[in-house]
Amino acid sequence: MNTPTSVAHSLDRATCTALDAADALAPFRDRFVLPAGVVYLDGNSLGALPGHTAAHVQRVITEEWGTGLIRSWNDAGWFAKPVALGDRIAPLIGAAPGEVVLGDSTSASLFQAAVAAVRMRPGRRVVVSERGSFPTDLYMLEAVQELLGGDEPLERRLIHDEGPSLEDVLGDDVAVVVLTHVDYRTGRMRDLAEVTRQVQASGALMLWDLCHSAGAVPVDLNGAGADLAIGCTYKYLNGGPGAPSFIWVAERHQSAAKPALTGWHGHARPFDFEFGYAPADGITRFRVGTPQLLSMAALEASLEIWEEVDLEAVREKSLRLTELFISLVDARLAPWGVEVVTPRQSALRGSQVALRVEDGFAVMQALIERGVIGDFRAPDLMRFGFAPLYVSHADVWDAVAALEEILSTEVWREPRFARRGAVT
Amino acid sequence: MNTPTSVAHSLDRATCTALDAADALAPFRDRFVLPAGVVYLDGNSLGALPGHTAAHVQRVITEEWGTGLIRSWNDAGWFAKPVALGDRIAPLIGAAPGEVVLGDSTSASLFQAAVAAVRMRPGRRVVVSERGSFPTDLYMLEAVQELLGGDEPLERRLIHDEGPSLEDVLGDDVAVVVLTHVDYRTGRMRDLAEVTRQVQASGALMLWDLCHSAGAVPVDLNGAGADLAIGCTYKYLNGGPGAPSFIWVAERHQSAAKPALTGWHGHARPFDFEFGYAPADGITRFRVGTPQLLSMAALEASLEIWEEVDLEAVREKSLRLTELFISLVDARLAPWGVEVVTPRQSALRGSQVALRVEDGFAVMQALIERGVIGDFRAPDLMRFGFAPLYVSHADVWDAVAALEEILSTEVWREPRFARRGAVT
Repeated sequence: MNTPTSVAHSLDRATCTALDAADALAPFRDRFVLPAGVVYLDGNSLGALPGHTAAHVQRVITEEWGTGLIRSWNDAGWFAKPVALGDRIAPLIGAAPGEVVLGDSTSASLFQAAVAAVRMRPGRRVVVSERGSFPTDLYMLEAVQELLGGDEPLERRLIHDEGPSLEDVLGDDVAVVVLTHVDYRTGRMRDLAEVTRQVQASGALMLWDLCHSAGAVPVDLNGAGADLAIGCTYKYLNGGPGAPSFIWVAERHQSAAKPALTGWHGHARPFDFEFGYAPADGITRFRVGTPQLLSMAALEASLEIWEEVDLEAVREKSLRLTELFISLVDARLAPWGVEVVTPRQSALRGSQVALRVEDGFAVMQALIERGVIGDFRAPDLMRFGFAPLYVSHADVWDAVAALEEILSTEVWREPRFARRGAVT
Repeated sequence: MNTPTSVAHSLDRATCTALDAADALAPFRDRFVLPAGVVYLDGNSLGALPGHTAAHVQRVITEEWGTGLIRSWNDAGWFAKPVALGDRIAPLIGAAPGEVVLGDSTSASLFQAAVAAVRMRPGRRVVVSERGSFPTDLYMLEAVQELLGGDEPLERRLIHDEGPSLEDVLGDDVAVVVLTHVDYRTGRMRDLAEVTRQVQASGALMLWDLCHSAGAVPVDLNGAGADLAIGCTYKYLNGGPGAPSFIWVAERHQSAAKPALTGWHGHARPFDFEFGYAPADGITRFRVGTPQLLSMAALEASLEIWEEVDLEAVREKSLRLTELFISLVDARLAPWGVEVVTPRQSALRGSQVALRVEDGFAVMQALIERGVIGDFRAPDLMRFGFAPLYVSHADVWDAVAALEEILSTEVWREPRFARRGAVT
């Protein structure tokens, strides 16, 4: 699986196209619509559009909404959709049917799950997370602290690569540990089973953020015996911009788990219009209000593809792509001080690679202008995602070649590439 | 404007079609797609599909997502969309630009707004609402009570038509009053300005639920000097199933208002990926996570229609339709004990009418089978919404005629109309 630098030096583009010709996942590329001339290495931020999504959403709009009208809440299964689609996500993350439900944004779902976890460990008043988490996770934990504060404040302890470690902060006062499986910037992947074991040994619950894992690497939540998880469907799962998040709660916890946001779609009898809140059985209680059906319809379309995918094959190709990228970067971009930030050990790497590059923002803008789309994460990382269903070995070659040209010609110094405004 | 029963007796269908021929809003019906043979009187639950929505969403999917990919967050204005569309809703509710933002579900938005309001009145520990509110509002206030409890529990006081009244429960301990402008079951409309004045005189903040008002009746939040509001876009505003809710916060409160759910899209500098939460200026701070863009795109399409609509003309036609309906029900359905629950005084009525009918569930199912679509709200109300952009006077005639036939033939007693399962 390793592609040492010496091998990379002898690689050429023809070798990459030969690898593509032998790639069992290559046919999936035809299931997606990608603009001509684009090498898309940002599927870790917004997944590519499946070819049949537009027609499916069209049908939901014209037939289910336009003709079915209000009747579609029953007749087209709209009401059941968040759990029905959750059941289709379940096998991708090692979950069982009835354990996964769609939510609003991942921020909102993290809040739902974290509050439930804290309440399941009364007396324990510490929430552990990580300083390098995607910021919204930490912002939402601030909200949890403020809202569940009261008599006895909730303390937040953050681990960091330079310390403190998880071992340092665990103790009998920790209610829940909230960690990201694959780091959004570096792509570093944690050992899900081992961390879960360590956390549970302290008596705390383990809440995983799978935003950069679902559809990128095999995940086995039940195999690891984890407690709760949330994740994203608009990255590797190709659900479309802002597609709904998901929440997983292990079946054994569901009757004790009390969600924070007690909306009517999580009620035991929503259409009895009862006066007081009573949680539904099972994962349904984690629903809040009326779900955004059209966004959900696009996700429904993309999940059809995922039902045909072997995640072990995805992982195998993902490692081939990221190793190829790292090797080519090492071999060709060293003169410009480009540093690979992502772990080189494959067990520690998700499906993305981050490079530290001086003036990385401008370099990325120049690269995008050349048709190679990655993204930039402040303060200094260029980030490249490798979605194995539609990224080829030749794409990897072309991306590094374009980077080499941009660095060697210094075209990125042109003023039009300078930073301005918001960039996702 | 009144159509006394004596007039209704002399009405015939030709009179109704003549009223349609003279109706200035009648041309708007062509902007919507409605199935042949259907009289749609449930636009208060799910608005009809605008004719151009499917093509607009199609374009967003294929061009903005498929071709633009991640670049569309900037290039297609995705990131700015929740506030940009809020600005287009603003004139429909008497709000100013920069005062309205799209949220997730109305349940989530009510939570956001209610927590902010309670925090703006420290020391006041009572939340007032109404027993007849749409249940999710009360469920979410239960969540607010539980989460903002702590040292000093938050008390919930509920008013009711049979007492206590608003006057009875107001006092210097009330932080916020949460009331629905137009009642979801009866269609009873409150005097927004007068109630706001009464509430504010006690020192409390006024939070309005506009779910059954926006697009149905003229609303003037700033004219009334109200404090906060939330509302729905999938009913009269035709945004599509589960379209995003909106939150309004009066400009004077925005710098003091602290949202409950502090997600990264509400951060002052979301793309600096800062470690700690810092609220954005203005209404943006009420955003939470990544918004569901495709559902938002459908709303964007329907708002194009609303830009051409004169809400005073909508109100005038709405009252004509509901009065016609009430008069015909009085004149023709009295033999079966059908009772009009909605206020007969036009100033107290929104754009919907509820009938109390024995076995109303089965009667509604028989009516729907006949192509007249209303809905049923437990325990005993048949509910009919009159969306003036696409409901005609002839529709009203046909609906009452169908009801009369169903009641007189007792077809509703057939077993297939008996209650089973969830009904929205």
